[in-house]
Amino acid sequence: MAPIPTFWSPRIGALEPYVPGEQPRIEGLIKLNTNENPYPPSPRVLDAVQAAAANGLERYPDPESMALREAVAAYYGLTRDQVFAGNGSDEVLAHAFFAFFQQAEPLLFADVTYSFYRVYAQLYGIECALQPVDDTLTIDVDAMAARAAQGCGGLVIANPNAPTGRSLPLADIERLLVACPARVVLVDEAYVDFGAQSAVSLIARHPNLLVVQTLSKSRSLAGLRVGFACGQAPLIDALTRVKNSFNSYPIDRLASAGAVAALEDEAWFRQTRDAIVDTREGLVLQLEDLGFEVQPSHANFVFVRHPAYDAAALAAALRERAVLVRHFRQPRIEQYLRISIGTRAQCSALVDASATIVG
Amino acid sequence: MAPIPTFWSPRIGALEPYVPGEQPRIEGLIKLNTNENPYPPSPRVLDAVQAAAANGLERYPDPESMALREAVAAYYGLTRDQVFAGNGSDEVLAHAFFAFFQQAEPLLFADVTYSFYRVYAQLYGIECALQPVDDTLTIDVDAMAARAAQGCGGLVIANPNAPTGRSLPLADIERLLVACPARVVLVDEAYVDFGAQSAVSLIARHPNLLVVQTLSKSRSLAGLRVGFACGQAPLIDALTRVKNSFNSYPIDRLASAGAVAALEDEAWFRQTRDAIVDTREGLVLQLEDLGFEVQPSHANFVFVRHPAYDAAALAAALRERAVLVRHFRQPRIEQYLRISIGTRAQCSALVDASATIVG
Repeated sequence: MAPIPTFWSPRIGALEPYVPGEQPRIEGLIKLNTNENPYPPSPRVLDAVQAAAANGLERYPDPESMALREAVAAYYGLTRDQVFAGNGSDEVLAHAFFAFFQQAEPLLFADVTYSFYRVYAQLYGIECALQPVDDTLTIDVDAMAARAAQGCGGLVIANPNAPTGRSLPLADIERLLVACPARVVLVDEAYVDFGAQSAVSLIARHPNLLVVQTLSKSRSLAGLRVGFACGQAPLIDALTRVKNSFNSYPIDRLASAGAVAALEDEAWFRQTRDAIVDTREGLVLQLEDLGFEVQPSHANFVFVRHPAYDAAALAAALRERAVLVRHFRQPRIEQYLRISIGTRAQCSALVDASATIVG
Repeated sequence: MAPIPTFWSPRIGALEPYVPGEQPRIEGLIKLNTNENPYPPSPRVLDAVQAAAANGLERYPDPESMALREAVAAYYGLTRDQVFAGNGSDEVLAHAFFAFFQQAEPLLFADVTYSFYRVYAQLYGIECALQPVDDTLTIDVDAMAARAAQGCGGLVIANPNAPTGRSLPLADIERLLVACPARVVLVDEAYVDFGAQSAVSLIARHPNLLVVQTLSKSRSLAGLRVGFACGQAPLIDALTRVKNSFNSYPIDRLASAGAVAALEDEAWFRQTRDAIVDTREGLVLQLEDLGFEVQPSHANFVFVRHPAYDAAALAAALRERAVLVRHFRQPRIEQYLRISIGTRAQCSALVDASATIVG
């Protein structure tokens, strides 16, 4: 590591920041590397953004994001004091780590999961306990519940998990909630709309449950940066205290207007979501025909490996053919590729390119 | 204080979050309480936002915000690696406190200044040393430089200061930079465009200087949440490390497009800025005619008191007359009101309402 320049707070030099997927500045690449939705957002989003842009950009947004929180609450049958909104689910997650997981005991999560969790923990000096997934990359719920019951500073589950795409049934989520009654269980549902069950229905019974979602994936709004958390009011209060000690107005007027419009267009949501799920099911069969092993996915991506080809070499060969997929240089998953579900045409192009490599 | 609910990290209950100025949900109030610009942003902002909204909202923004950072760099004659961008200057300030001021020695700032500084310090467990302003609410640069030279974890100056509006000449800023050579001196220039001198010109000579600005005030974009920091590359590197450990994409596609367009319309900027400065100079005379004492202001607000009237009562009486101004219940300034500079018509209405109260 390079020496820490003077002026930095001592811990800054030791941070290992998250590395997001490549956002290429060259045109024409088929971009299946960052789990974006291949379809544009509801046309109502554009209308709402244009109206908001013409009316009062010189004034601060509502610091409480009432309209957005009420739209989420209405969607899920909650009250607005059970909803917190932030600048993408990443900001919501960061505040949640600060608000709930700075505890004496270590924070528990799977060894194969969204790699930002370790980064947040490092940022805030939170010790982690990694629970190994099994050989099929499935979270071992019994083992995790047993570990949680020994005492932990909290528990984080991505459901469906990233980057595997595997989901847990709600009965398993509830076992974890019961195993960790004194600490927050954060269920990160960034991909839940593509086939898994949301734990929002468990909030009334479990004061330690915080569910985090995003409009980036199933609402086609990665470019707008809106995420939210749902939980009982004392958890939302804690997040609000952190947010109001950090940035009073994280959601700008245009993002709020666009997000509300997206949440209100259920037909568009279902149509695009269904197209992605349908494309995924077809893609799985085609990749299996090419010899790939495919993790069962409830997300807008598939996690695959080929027994005869090195994953990094495959990713490079696909890139030469103008197809971007995501490869993680991490223990246990370095032979996998994560492939986002694009349009049918994009997925066909991926299959064609793959066939020229492994065929 | 209420008991800390279970589930919260221990420090959360002790936070005293920042309280932003009221954003009233009722129409028709003359809003001179949050230092917003009374004029809309450049028409080019609306065009840029509409184009961006129609093109790719389903894709993530550039995590490095290159276009925005290049626009700022071009404006100030810097390179893009000398510019950091964030979700409003509040987020930039929060990251700067984390990146630079978690030190063994206390952080130094004036006892009368932007009240969010104390909140950031509390959030991150940073000890503060408050340097008293003098009886005219002016920062005593000699005393602050002497205190800094004894050792401090960093120094923060708002220039112009909030909520007084008083500015320091660059020679004073440079004395502080020299007095604190081993720690960062953060100069918060949220209001600099309304009459003070920017310290950006000192960056080349001072590796410990970080200048923070916002597009909320002089660019009429409070609703869009864009701020930035300028400094030598090692300081920008530290902010980037923190940002990439917190939220990869804090600036959405629309905010980036709108901010770039605003920075490119220099004519609009000058025209609206000059109107505000002109209105301020007229307002000062009118308020003095009514018996108010007015702090000399280089900002888009004035800080006033009336020797014969209680400030809280004045604020309440103005609110009854549909005029919102800001009153801070804080030691030393509880007899002052902060009045944002509105349009000429809004300021006339303020003067008329004030005349009925103190006349």
